[in-house]
Amino acid sequence: MPRRSSVVVDTSASPHARLRPIALTGVQLADTFWRPRIDINSTVTLPSQHAHCEETERIANFRRAAGREDGDFVGLFFNDSDVYKWLEAVGWNDALGDDAQLHAMRDQVVADIVAAQDGDGYLNAYFSKERIAERWTNMDLHEMYCAGHFIQAAIAVHRTSGNEAVLTAACRLADHIDATFGPAEQGKRETSDGHPEIELALVELYRTTRQERYLRLAEFLVGVRGAHKVGTNPFGRFDAAYHQDHVPYRELDEVVGHAVRMVYLAAGATDLWLETGDQSLKRAIDAQWHNMTHKRMYVSGGLGSRWNGEDFGGDYELPNDTAYTETCAAIASVMWNWRLLQGTGEARYADLMEWTLYNAVMPGLSLSGNEYFYQNPLSNAGTHRRAPWFGCACCPPNVARLLAQLGGYVASVDADTLWIHTYIAGHIDAQGSGLPAAVQVETEYPWEGRIRITVTRGGQYGIKVRIPSWASGASVTVAGVRQTAAVDSYVTVRRAWQRGDVIDIDLPMSPRILMANPAVTPNVGRGAVARGPILYCVEQVDQTYPVHTLALRPETVWQVLPGAGVLGEHRVIEGAGVHHDLPQGALYAPWRRDYATPCRLRLVPYHLWANRDAGAMQVWLPLQV
Amino acid sequence: MPRRSSVVVDTSASPHARLRPIALTGVQLADTFWRPRIDINSTVTLPSQHAHCEETERIANFRRAAGREDGDFVGLFFNDSDVYKWLEAVGWNDALGDDAQLHAMRDQVVADIVAAQDGDGYLNAYFSKERIAERWTNMDLHEMYCAGHFIQAAIAVHRTSGNEAVLTAACRLADHIDATFGPAEQGKRETSDGHPEIELALVELYRTTRQERYLRLAEFLVGVRGAHKVGTNPFGRFDAAYHQDHVPYRELDEVVGHAVRMVYLAAGATDLWLETGDQSLKRAIDAQWHNMTHKRMYVSGGLGSRWNGEDFGGDYELPNDTAYTETCAAIASVMWNWRLLQGTGEARYADLMEWTLYNAVMPGLSLSGNEYFYQNPLSNAGTHRRAPWFGCACCPPNVARLLAQLGGYVASVDADTLWIHTYIAGHIDAQGSGLPAAVQVETEYPWEGRIRITVTRGGQYGIKVRIPSWASGASVTVAGVRQTAAVDSYVTVRRAWQRGDVIDIDLPMSPRILMANPAVTPNVGRGAVARGPILYCVEQVDQTYPVHTLALRPETVWQVLPGAGVLGEHRVIEGAGVHHDLPQGALYAPWRRDYATPCRLRLVPYHLWANRDAGAMQVWLPLQV
Repeated sequence: MPRRSSVVVDTSASPHARLRPIALTGVQLADTFWRPRIDINSTVTLPSQHAHCEETERIANFRRAAGREDGDFVGLFFNDSDVYKWLEAVGWNDALGDDAQLHAMRDQVVADIVAAQDGDGYLNAYFSKERIAERWTNMDLHEMYCAGHFIQAAIAVHRTSGNEAVLTAACRLADHIDATFGPAEQGKRETSDGHPEIELALVELYRTTRQERYLRLAEFLVGVRGAHKVGTNPFGRFDAAYHQDHVPYRELDEVVGHAVRMVYLAAGATDLWLETGDQSLKRAIDAQWHNMTHKRMYVSGGLGSRWNGEDFGGDYELPNDTAYTETCAAIASVMWNWRLLQGTGEARYADLMEWTLYNAVMPGLSLSGNEYFYQNPLSNAGTHRRAPWFGCACCPPNVARLLAQLGGYVASVDADTLWIHTYIAGHIDAQGSGLPAAVQVETEYPWEGRIRITVTRGGQYGIKVRIPSWASGASVTVAGVRQTAAVDSYVTVRRAWQRGDVIDIDLPMSPRILMANPAVTPNVGRGAVARGPILYCVEQVDQTYPVHTLALRPETVWQVLPGAGVLGEHRVIEGAGVHHDLPQGALYAPWRRDYATPCRLRLVPYHLWANRDAGAMQVWLPLQV
Repeated sequence: MPRRSSVVVDTSASPHARLRPIALTGVQLADTFWRPRIDINSTVTLPSQHAHCEETERIANFRRAAGREDGDFVGLFFNDSDVYKWLEAVGWNDALGDDAQLHAMRDQVVADIVAAQDGDGYLNAYFSKERIAERWTNMDLHEMYCAGHFIQAAIAVHRTSGNEAVLTAACRLADHIDATFGPAEQGKRETSDGHPEIELALVELYRTTRQERYLRLAEFLVGVRGAHKVGTNPFGRFDAAYHQDHVPYRELDEVVGHAVRMVYLAAGATDLWLETGDQSLKRAIDAQWHNMTHKRMYVSGGLGSRWNGEDFGGDYELPNDTAYTETCAAIASVMWNWRLLQGTGEARYADLMEWTLYNAVMPGLSLSGNEYFYQNPLSNAGTHRRAPWFGCACCPPNVARLLAQLGGYVASVDADTLWIHTYIAGHIDAQGSGLPAAVQVETEYPWEGRIRITVTRGGQYGIKVRIPSWASGASVTVAGVRQTAAVDSYVTVRRAWQRGDVIDIDLPMSPRILMANPAVTPNVGRGAVARGPILYCVEQVDQTYPVHTLALRPETVWQVLPGAGVLGEHRVIEGAGVHHDLPQGALYAPWRRDYATPCRLRLVPYHLWANRDAGAMQVWLPLQV
C-alpha cells in the first residue's frame, strides 16, 4: 500500500494555529533512545496488546454485538475504547513501515467494529442487545468517550491506509451523536458528557472532512458544561467537579477533578480555539495551564494526586508515595501542550511536552515493551511493579499510540521557518508541509547536550531551534558565529542554506538539583536531581544503604556514566551523598553532625525504575546542605 | 471527713516491687506548672465533666437501669466507663482537699451506680432491660472494660472517703465475673476480653481486699489471650491483633493493635508480675516496651499511628499529620511506666513517664481546663482544635483522673531511701510509707534546671534524685561536694540528714534538636526542638512566614523567654531559623542557597499548641545544616 503523508493533529489549515504540522512520514528517527522504543512498539507492544484484547474478549464484544458470535459483553462498560486506542496506534504505526501481521489484525478489528455499528450510526458493544434501551441514559457511562476514541482511530487508519469505510463509520457515529445532542432549541438533548475526549476527536474529524457540524458539535459539548447534568459514576460518589461539570468551561480557571478527563477536555478546547480563535476559551485554557504548572503538577510532569477519583487534588497537594499520576494523564498533557505549541509557537509548551514525555509518560512502559504502570508514584517501598495488562486498560494502548505518533511531535513549520522542538537523531523533511527545508539531526540527546543540525536541502528559509528552560549557558553556533540563546525560547537562524551547512547546539548537561515550592510540604528541605530533560531517582538495587536514609549534597560534583545491564545506553549519575543513621537503633537522639556519614549515590533515570530487582525508589531526597 | 492516707497504685506489699508508693496526702505540690492545672481540675474540669455526663444522660442511664427513672439507655454502649473515670478522678481529688460540691456529686453518682447493680452482681447500664439476654454474648462490647473502670473508681472513692458500699459493689461485680469466666475445667467460660483494662483493676482490688481470687482472675484474663475468641467490634472489621488476642500474651514481643487496649493490658500484666514475679510475663513486657520505645512511639511519647482501629501501626510507621496518638494511650503509657518503675527502680521508666506527661498527656487538655484533644497530631494545618466533649468521651475524664493522681507519681521509697522521680516544687513526706524522710523541693522545673531539695525531717536515710536522659552535664551538689551524676539514672546521697540540709541539682537546659531514626521516613532531614523535659513546636500565630516554609539551623544559639498572654509562666524559645521560598511562585526551580533566607523562629511548648488563634502547627522542621 502506498505510504500516505500522514499528520497526527492536522492543524495545516487551522486559521488560528501559528504552526503547521509535519507528517509522520517526513520524520525519520534513527536515535538510540526513541527508535528502539518505537521498534519494540511495533514488534512487541502492539501484537501483545492485540492478544490481550482478544483474551479479555474486548474484540469479541464487537463480534457479539454484531451478532457474529454468541455470548454477552464481557468486562468494563468502556472496554471498547482500549481496542480503539490500539487501532489508532496501529494506524499511526503504519506510517513508519509495513507490517503484514499488524495489517491483518487491523483489518479484522476494523471489520469487527464496523459490523457492530447500528443502522442509526450508534456504535458501542456494551450498549447492545438487552442494554439497547440504556443508551444515553447515564452520561457518565463513557459512550461519548468511546465514540471519541473510535473517531480518532478511524482518522489514523484512514490517514495511513486510505480506508474509507472506517472513516465513514466514524462520521455516521458522529452524525448520530450530532442528531441526539445539541441546543435544546433544536430539539436536541442539551447535556454534558461525563468523560471528555470526544471534543478533540470531533475537531479532528472536522479537519478531515471539513464538515462544519462536527466543529459545532465539539463547540456545543465544551460550551454546555457547568450545568451539573452528568449522571452517577458507577465507581464512586463524585461531585460535578469530578467531570468538570460544575462551572462553565470558559469560567474554569483551574485544573480540577479527574485528571485525564480534565486534560482531554482542555486539549479539545484548545483544538476548538485553534479553529475558532475564541479568546474566551483561550483565557480559560491559559488560567488552567497556569494553575497546573504552578500548583498541581509533579516534578515529573505527572498529573493527578489522588487515588480517590483519579483526581488532580488541591493546590500543592502533591504527595510522593501516594501520587496517582496516571500514565494517561501525562499523555493527555503531551496532547494538550502540543496543541498549545501549534497555536502559539511558545517554547514553554514544547519544554513541558518534552519533559512530560521523558519523565511522566515513559515510566508507564517497561523496557521490554509489554508491562505498564497505571500509577506513577514518586517514591515507593518497592511494592509497585509494572503489570502486563489491567482490568481498566486505558494506559497500555495510550502509550502505544503516543509512541507511534512521536515523529509527528519533533518539528513544525510556519510559512518560512522550520521549528525544531526536540532533538532526536534522524532526518526531518518539511517538504510535505510546503516548506522546502530538510535537515539531518545528529546527537546523543537526551544523554548528551551536543546537537549538530546539517542542512540536507538548501534554500532560503529559517530554522528555529529550541533552548530548553533548564539549558542556561546554551550555545548555538552557525558557521562559527555564536548566536544569542535565551533559555525557554527558540533561536532563529534565517539564511540561504546550502546543503551541508551546519548548526551546532550545545546544551549544558550538568546535573542539577531541583527544589519544590515549600507549599509542597513533603518536599521541603529536599531536592530532586535532573540532567538535561531527564529526571533521576535513587533505586534500592544501586545503593549500599536503604534508600530512605540517603541525602543529597548540593556541592557534589557528579559523574555521568553509561548504565549497565538493561539500563544499557542510558546514563546514570554518581556522586557523593550522605547516609543518615542513629546509634544503637535509637528512635530519637539529639542531633549530631556525624550521624550523617558520606556515601556514594547512584541515580538512575526515573522513567527506568522498576526495570530491575524490586526495591525502594525515591525521587526527592533530603538536602544535606 | 478525715483525710485518709491514699495511695494510687498500692504496691506497698507487692513482693516483687522494688519501690513502695507515697500516698497522695504525703505530697503537697506548690509549683506554677502543675498546681494551677490541678486546681483547675478541681474547680473547672470535674464539675464541667459532671455536667456533660448529666447532659448526655450518661448518669441517667444508671438511674434508668435501676428503674428509678423512665427511658432507655442513651449513647454508646460503653458510656458507663466515662462516669466511672470521672468518679475515680473525684476520688483521688478528695485526697487534695474537701470540696462540698464535688462530694455531693460523688455521693449521688455512687448511689445511682450502686442502685443499678443486679442481684447477681452484674453491673452495666447498657445491658439492662431488653438487652439483659445479650450480656457477655460479644466480648468486644466492653463489659469487662466498664467493670474495670468501676473497680478502679470504687477503690479510689474507698481509699479517700472510706465508703465501703462502693467497694462492696465492686467486689460483687468482680465476683460475678469470677464466677462466669475462668478455666474451662472449672466449668467457666474460657475466653478473652475485647478491651483490656480490667486486669490492672483486679490486681488493685486484690491489693485492697487481699482476696486471692481477684489476682487469679487477672492472671486468667492475661493468660487466656491468643485464642482469637473475641467477638466482632461494632465499629469495624478488625483482626485478632486489634484486641491483642492473636498470640498468647507471654509470646507477644511487640505493641500491636488498638493502642489503648495494648498498653492497659501491658500495665495490667506488669501489675501481675509485681505480685507474682512471673518472669515469663516480664520477658514479654520488656520486649513490648523495647518495641514501643525503639520503633512505635512518637517523639512526644504519644502512641498509636493509625486512625483506622486507633492502632499502633507497624515499626517506624509514625506519620505526623495523620498521627492518632490518642490522649488515653499516653495516659496508659504513664500508668504502665509507673508500674515498671515501681518494679525495677530503673530511671528510664521515670524518664519516659515524665516526658509522656508533659508532651503527650498534657496536649490533651486546654489551659482553660474544659476542652480536650482526643487525637494529638504532630503537624496540622490549623483545623484540629480541642472540643468540650466527645461522643466517645474516654479522654476527658482520663486526663482528670491522672491530674488528680499526679502527686502520687512524684516519689517512692524503698526500705531506707526516698526516690525522687520528677521535680515539682512542693513538699514530700514519706512518713506514711514507713520512711521518716521529708523534703522541701524548690524549683522552676520544667522551665529551669536548678532544683534545691531541703531536708525538713532529719534522720539516717538515703535520697535518690533522678538525672534525666537528656541532662548530660548535670550536677548534684551536697554540702558543697559534687556527686557523680550519670544521665538516665538516680544519684544516691546517703547520710545522717539534719533538718535544713540541702541537695542542689543543676540540669542543663539548653535547647536541643532531636533527630528521628531515618526509618521514620517523614522526618528524614528534619529536627524537633526540646528543652529539658519539654518538646517544642512552631505555631502559625507566632511566625512571620507560613509554618511549612520554616527550617531550623543546628548552630542557632537560642533565647529562652517567658511566654506572653495565655502562655503566661511557660517558656518560649526564639532564635535564628530559615524561611524557604521560590521566586515568582514557581512550583520547581534549580536549588540555590539563597532561596533559604534567614528569619526569626519562635517555638512554643507542644502541649500548649491550639490555645491561641487557630493556625498551622509543626513539631518536625527541616534542618538547614
